[in-house]
Amino acid sequence: MHLTVLGCYAATPRTLTNPTSQVLEINNHVVLIDCGEGTQVELRRHKIKFSRINHIFISHLHGDHFFGLPGFISTMRLLGRDKELHVYGPKGIKEAITLLLKLGDSWTNYPLLFHELTSKETELIFEDDKISVSTIPLDHRVYTNGYLFKEKLGKRKLNVAAVEKYGIDKAYYNNLKNGRDITLDNGSIVPNKELTYDPPKPKSYAFCSDTIYDESLADKVKEVDVLYHESTFLDSEAHLAAKTKHATAKQAAQVAKDANVKTLVLGHYSTRYKSIVLFKEEASTVFPNVLLADDGKTFDF
Amino acid sequence: MHLTVLGCYAATPRTLTNPTSQVLEINNHVVLIDCGEGTQVELRRHKIKFSRINHIFISHLHGDHFFGLPGFISTMRLLGRDKELHVYGPKGIKEAITLLLKLGDSWTNYPLLFHELTSKETELIFEDDKISVSTIPLDHRVYTNGYLFKEKLGKRKLNVAAVEKYGIDKAYYNNLKNGRDITLDNGSIVPNKELTYDPPKPKSYAFCSDTIYDESLADKVKEVDVLYHESTFLDSEAHLAAKTKHATAKQAAQVAKDANVKTLVLGHYSTRYKSIVLFKEEASTVFPNVLLADDGKTFDF
Repeated sequence: MHLTVLGCYAATPRTLTNPTSQVLEINNHVVLIDCGEGTQVELRRHKIKFSRINHIFISHLHGDHFFGLPGFISTMRLLGRDKELHVYGPKGIKEAITLLLKLGDSWTNYPLLFHELTSKETELIFEDDKISVSTIPLDHRVYTNGYLFKEKLGKRKLNVAAVEKYGIDKAYYNNLKNGRDITLDNGSIVPNKELTYDPPKPKSYAFCSDTIYDESLADKVKEVDVLYHESTFLDSEAHLAAKTKHATAKQAAQVAKDANVKTLVLGHYSTRYKSIVLFKEEASTVFPNVLLADDGKTFDF
Repeated sequence: MHLTVLGCYAATPRTLTNPTSQVLEINNHVVLIDCGEGTQVELRRHKIKFSRINHIFISHLHGDHFFGLPGFISTMRLLGRDKELHVYGPKGIKEAITLLLKLGDSWTNYPLLFHELTSKETELIFEDDKISVSTIPLDHRVYTNGYLFKEKLGKRKLNVAAVEKYGIDKAYYNNLKNGRDITLDNGSIVPNKELTYDPPKPKSYAFCSDTIYDESLADKVKEVDVLYHESTFLDSEAHLAAKTKHATAKQAAQVAKDANVKTLVLGHYSTRYKSIVLFKEEASTVFPNVLLADDGKTFDF
């Protein structure tokens, strides 16, 4: 699982900081999460091919999470895309993008498919044999969802030495990977466990931004490998966090602790602070394994 | 008259090139012309105060001239603007911006006034005692206007030595600047011309992008001081220019020549070419005084 943070600062694009956008590579899928202004330039800067992205997940329709999307969709057309592009986001996103493309008389010549969200309950919104994606309803000033990305359990891995020892023909390898036992020519059965290894444990990534501190969130992101939780403010500005429906670093860490996640990644920093290291210091007083997102930073999980 | 080119490349924002946006400072007005994605970041980079901009002129609703506007308008709110902001552009611009702000539940708390354009004839759309702004109807794939900015003739300048020689009281200075003659205490009349100098000749700037080559355009920009004319292509791609309703450097120069302008500024380059110097070379075969726009370049006229 590989995460590239294209932007992770709150409010407005600036010369040195970008609004929210991330690329998550998970089990051969490349998904874009949020798309603030400047996202397409950051994708180019990080040499991420636009054509690899087939799914875009937008948390909410504030500009700093969304105003890069019309341009990104338009650029896909100029690049000659012909594959489907799926956009998940709050109801209204289709009307907005459709209107902008209509005004420019520049509708896409690839299939652009919107999946509009309205539910306040968790929903499974995408699933194939590689991953599943569910919403994480969040509490912000407008209708907002986080997203929970989960790898599917892969096939079992062949124990090559054991397989060769029993002289098992290649024709049976697929059965083995699917967990079947093998009956040898002499009628004896070799249990699958002797011939294969467990597949790698599936990983999970929860993206939660923007949101007020919400105790009940911990249940929804229980034991994920990585929790990205916004921390717009420090505890000294907790009153501003409450007022604007954002969270503090300490609150993000409390969610991580209550959910017993492996790693907490902080982001969506207000630019009022001199150093983002302050966020890590604060969160670390509550939860041990804290990482700081920053524009251009990549993570392997 | 001072021009800052924030972006002058066609189609999409890239790591090293920005789509169209310019800031024109003319007779104490600071206006923004077009607003491609990334405009607000470029304004910050060039240290142009957002609060100085009260008028925005959008040529047409293709993304590379317009997709930075929702973010710019939103950022103005976050910066605490309370002054009126006037947006001029094709019909539909109000619906688009209004929808985006409504979806984000983040309407401006300053007066945002739209002036939607539909006419295919030249219109005077703004005028005060400093400048006038008229549309220049252009022929592109969607409804498009260029804009003609003209300084108003200023007041006459005092000839301080002459005024002191006649011992004229300060109370009369305003009359002098307004062109009045002076009657001295002895009854004799001093003609205004002896006491003042002509005001500086008013300057004019015509912004013409995007447009196909149009012979009749020369009449509309006759003898302007500066003509910014798009040159998306070189003559070798004249067939593409015709097909996409853009112009070549040679065609832009022909308009400049026919209109007898003082200076031609080229821009809106396709990124297919290795060097923009090629555009100047081509245009200079037709018209002598050619300048090249480039991102971040400033001009004093």
